[in-house]
Amino acid sequence: NPRNRKESKPPQLPLVDENGSLNLERKGFPKTFLYWGDMFHTLVNITSTKFTIVLFIAYFLLFVVFAVPYYIEAIVHNSIPGIHSFVHAVWFSVQTSMTIGYGGDLTPVPESFITNAVVALQSVTSLLVAYSLLGVVYARFSRPTRRATTIVFSKKMVINNDGGIPSLSFRIGNIRKHQLIEASVRMLVAFNNLDSEDEDDSVFRFINLQIRGGGQLFLALPCIVSHAMVFGSPLHNLDEEKMRSSDMEILVLLEAVDSSTSSKLQARKSYRPSDIKINYRFSSMVHRMPTGRRCVDFSTFQNIDPISENSPDYLSSFNMNPVLVETSSYEDFS
Amino acid sequence: NPRNRKESKPPQLPLVDENGSLNLERKGFPKTFLYWGDMFHTLVNITSTKFTIVLFIAYFLLFVVFAVPYYIEAIVHNSIPGIHSFVHAVWFSVQTSMTIGYGGDLTPVPESFITNAVVALQSVTSLLVAYSLLGVVYARFSRPTRRATTIVFSKKMVINNDGGIPSLSFRIGNIRKHQLIEASVRMLVAFNNLDSEDEDDSVFRFINLQIRGGGQLFLALPCIVSHAMVFGSPLHNLDEEKMRSSDMEILVLLEAVDSSTSSKLQARKSYRPSDIKINYRFSSMVHRMPTGRRCVDFSTFQNIDPISENSPDYLSSFNMNPVLVETSSYEDFS
Amino acid sequence: NPRNRKESKPPQLPLVDENGSLNLERKGFPKTFLYWGDMFHTLVNITSTKFTIVLFIAYFLLFVVFAVPYYIEAIVHNSIPGIHSFVHAVWFSVQTSMTIGYGGDLTPVPESFITNAVVALQSVTSLLVAYSLLGVVYARFSRPTRRATTIVFSKKMVINNDGGIPSLSFRIGNIRKHQLIEASVRMLVAFNNLDSEDEDDSVFRFINLQIRGGGQLFLALPCIVSHAMVFGSPLHNLDEEKMRSSDMEILVLLEAVDSSTSSKLQARKSYRPSDIKINYRFSSMVHRMPTGRRCVDFSTFQNIDPISENSPDYLSSFNMNPVLVETSSYEDFS
Amino acid sequence: NPRNRKESKPPQLPLVDENGSLNLERKGFPKTFLYWGDMFHTLVNITSTKFTIVLFIAYFLLFVVFAVPYYIEAIVHNSIPGIHSFVHAVWFSVQTSMTIGYGGDLTPVPESFITNAVVALQSVTSLLVAYSLLGVVYARFSRPTRRATTIVFSKKMVINNDGGIPSLSFRIGNIRKHQLIEASVRMLVAFNNLDSEDEDDSVFRFINLQIRGGGQLFLALPCIVSHAMVFGSPLHNLDEEKMRSSDMEILVLLEAVDSSTSSKLQARKSYRPSDIKINYRFSSMVHRMPTGRRCVDFSTFQNIDPISENSPDYLSSFNMNPVLVETSSYEDFS
Ligand SMILES: [K+]
Ligand SMILES: [K+]
Repeated sequence: NPRNRKESKPPQLPLVDENGSLNLERKGFPKTFLYWGDMFHTLVNITSTKFTIVLFIAYFLLFVVFAVPYYIEAIVHNSIPGIHSFVHAVWFSVQTSMTIGYGGDLTPVPESFITNAVVALQSVTSLLVAYSLLGVVYARFSRPTRRATTIVFSKKMVINNDGGIPSLSFRIGNIRKHQLIEASVRMLVAFNNLDSEDEDDSVFRFINLQIRGGGQLFLALPCIVSHAMVFGSPLHNLDEEKMRSSDMEILVLLEAVDSSTSSKLQARKSYRPSDIKINYRFSSMVHRMPTGRRCVDFSTFQNIDPISENSPDYLSSFNMNPVLVETSSYEDFS
Repeated sequence: NPRNRKESKPPQLPLVDENGSLNLERKGFPKTFLYWGDMFHTLVNITSTKFTIVLFIAYFLLFVVFAVPYYIEAIVHNSIPGIHSFVHAVWFSVQTSMTIGYGGDLTPVPESFITNAVVALQSVTSLLVAYSLLGVVYARFSRPTRRATTIVFSKKMVINNDGGIPSLSFRIGNIRKHQLIEASVRMLVAFNNLDSEDEDDSVFRFINLQIRGGGQLFLALPCIVSHAMVFGSPLHNLDEEKMRSSDMEILVLLEAVDSSTSSKLQARKSYRPSDIKINYRFSSMVHRMPTGRRCVDFSTFQNIDPISENSPDYLSSFNMNPVLVETSSYEDFS
Repeated sequence: NPRNRKESKPPQLPLVDENGSLNLERKGFPKTFLYWGDMFHTLVNITSTKFTIVLFIAYFLLFVVFAVPYYIEAIVHNSIPGIHSFVHAVWFSVQTSMTIGYGGDLTPVPESFITNAVVALQSVTSLLVAYSLLGVVYARFSRPTRRATTIVFSKKMVINNDGGIPSLSFRIGNIRKHQLIEASVRMLVAFNNLDSEDEDDSVFRFINLQIRGGGQLFLALPCIVSHAMVFGSPLHNLDEEKMRSSDMEILVLLEAVDSSTSSKLQARKSYRPSDIKINYRFSSMVHRMPTGRRCVDFSTFQNIDPISENSPDYLSSFNMNPVLVETSSYEDFS
Repeated sequence: NPRNRKESKPPQLPLVDENGSLNLERKGFPKTFLYWGDMFHTLVNITSTKFTIVLFIAYFLLFVVFAVPYYIEAIVHNSIPGIHSFVHAVWFSVQTSMTIGYGGDLTPVPESFITNAVVALQSVTSLLVAYSLLGVVYARFSRPTRRATTIVFSKKMVINNDGGIPSLSFRIGNIRKHQLIEASVRMLVAFNNLDSEDEDDSVFRFINLQIRGGGQLFLALPCIVSHAMVFGSPLHNLDEEKMRSSDMEILVLLEAVDSSTSSKLQARKSYRPSDIKINYRFSSMVHRMPTGRRCVDFSTFQNIDPISENSPDYLSSFNMNPVLVETSSYEDFS
């Protein structure tokens, strides 16, 4: 097929087509070896038609290969009274493989080819239905969504001058004993009427709030997560009046892995301006007991204490924010 | 075998051999305890031969141990009419364990050792076949690939002067109600005829485009993802004419975790120069309803609006790009 | 319903409600196509009521569709002696699908509608129970927690002047042959009586310790993980006496993925001041054997050697810490 | 219990005990609600004893509840000829639930309590054995290790002056059509005789090599991964002679997720000094075909081409390395 390249350039298909699959061909490697060596992924990725063919061939072989010894034994030693021909042995093999084991007059007569073939077909189909069901039942039963409800957020956020830095904080805890690992938290803020040129109340945008210590948590103990309201933060120089009157929303996302099932989960919490308490701190909720072990007391999880004016953590003015973001990364556990 | 180390250094095998396995031996720890304490991973990682042996021993024990009470009861109280010897009890145990429960004249006579042994073998083999099948059926049915098709990308990219920074943006949304978590997005650009010394049209290279806000998304709401075309970007100083004539391709990759099954998925989209619209912005598609809830209207997902020349978002010239990349990280949700 | 918007603004519900679900509606896309195209995730996410209805419809169809050929064959060729009506054929189909295959006088008579219907109901229920059980059995048996016990930590930490930088180090190893991938380690320190304004011994906070090389490990070989006690570290200028008398605790978290099952695991270790040895280093435990392969000898895993005073690794004073954190990232394997 | 705190401080147990479990108690939240609301994780995490008890209670209820309608029907309408008492109905229920469906004289007589009880016990036990087996079979069959063998590394590394920066590069490709996502690559170098004070040939340490573009790959196309041998790199100023004579080893680790099963895999490759070719580049292996689609030709995957001395990519001297590491992140696909 001669191709005229002088005037017309070849069409230039994008790498990814409309369906998200790749406009890509592959050659120059031994496919046979490849597909046999990694059978599982081959079977998962072939088309449904090919998979059905492979499935029926596999079961056909399973039924027929095992029918041979049954037939020989039945003919030679009459070990299975109902078997008189090889076809009978195949049906017996089907009933054994699929663990049916008919008996009585609800048993297809071995001579009836079609009925027994339908039995084989129905058995394999039922297996497929059951296994598809299994996947769904398993996924439904183990859904990490329910696990996420065992993560608790404080109902209030507090603002104070923690370590000399004006901070907006909330508390998060895992009330189940078994652990969440690789926990990381994100804070986002949205203003509905600020930052929007057309003043349409339906426009809002979320802006990331940097978390002191980087957002990686150790959830065995309840954590206080803080955002430094310093230069660079969208909350810098936000005074109390402005905050109270704004249509602001702070969204908190916790993503973690359940250590027993390795499933990922996300817990979410929204805070509104009315949920923010200024010059409060979260009450202590971890104590060392006389035995030397520590005890986490969730009954005080929601408690917050006012900060006295002469405490270094008291924030006298919102506008005296320092300019620099601290560089050292740390985490707080109350 | 005495070894002359004077002249010849010992062979120095690399840490990883040709097959990717490690040239490493391990000693000095109690193996027995180790393998029994973590049986699951031991069984998963032993060779297939050893696994088969363990499997048959386990089933042999299962069959024989339960045969004992059956035999005693059958002999003493005649509780199972067909059992006259211990071997009969074993076959009964096999038929019970594998849930066959034969009846009628398609039952192997208990005296026939070989037939019954083949029944046991076939049962265990069928179980293995079924369970291998199950893995494949489950993986096929739950393939996250289909889930990825419920992620939509805007057909067009837009360039505008968003927040004073020339930005190349697209919109992405998740049209299913159940959530995608740990979503992150990457943008790559490839030029076929630039950056290539031999001008061969088959050579192309992808270059990462930095994403404003870092690429981590919250996909509950549709997101606008932007790249700042500033100094340091491969698209810096790219003028419209150059862009239109180039064989350029922008590839977008979204990787996320389905929250109900914890499976990872990747959605992909290619944009060509003809898909890029200058001085447009994406239409708003999230509205607050009278009930106070928000509503995402996907019917306007693909809509873009022209930007008027006197808007601050209007980009008058491609070359007036600012030099500095902004430092604050944020995300946009229209 | 006319709505007076003049004075009263609409209610502004937060994006996330009390239960963590989203206050969000979605419209403008073809739902039917969506839910059929991604059936698995649809079935996983519908309500339990809907799922039960779908389940029973699916099994009803499975039973009835296969009953047709059985009925025809049984009437025309008498292939199944016990079938005299279509309802009989349905019960036969149930017993085949669920692999029951009754026989003898413990078979429900085909004429008894209720009994056979209960059989069908019990079969499907048992399947659901068994599959829920399966999920739990699988999760219990494959729990990565046990795998985590095959990760060993050194009992002691050492402080020395490694590469001219005062470093606090521990050793970590994986004693199983099969690999852990994506291993990353974190070090946290908590002081009970420092940094706490109210001197209550129950208040403690964990602070991240930066790890030399960034915390990503290659666990095929045992690793020495170090923290540089330099400016910016909470351990900077900590002298020996202060350290010994403080109620300090260093927590080490290792998170990794088991390569055979892709499950995430976390191993944890606490160090107290009495576990820290100054001017020691960990003994070598990897040797090249005459064959050229390397050998990891876990019998010397816990061994530490004193450092002589004239070694460059000897740390003469805690206070002579350099000010800068090194920038190059590396990992040590002894 | 009065406690004398004057002289004796309470014992201070570390947060993590010897076995890696937490020295932590939890109180102050409603446990009952918690455990019922998230039944799956409760069942996964309770002790084996409790789990066994729950399991047997669940199956006992399943057997007995369904026995009620069987008994009523059997007594009133004689629907199951073999049932004469409620205990018979329970055994029938067991045989139905576990899909045994005995028939003929290998059926336990309904009057025999012990035999039938053992049948129930064996059935549940067999289910547990089978499901444990299933977990192992599934994990073995789907092991991502085999998938990792379909990732290919170039046999050689090349050094050239790519883009004016002396670079050490290798090529990596995925020869299967289905995708690997979240692919990231790491390069580590170990010198056996450098950096080791005691010159023992068994001491070696791995140092991370920074990857140009950050190590995140898009593996749909083969990638060339490069390390810039500039200031800050442990390979800076390494001349050819030194490299050839050293006992150096470069280890490459690729970690990715298989898109069809979400399993994590790691592929590994070691390079020795003799595998490094100076002033070569990898041959092109992606071509646009007349159809406009691209074609990846793996037959030239291992090919390298010499670089002519007057090419800008020719590296004339190892010591003329630039001092600054480039800041822009990119990826190369040949
Ligand atoms: K059966
Ligand atoms: K049966």
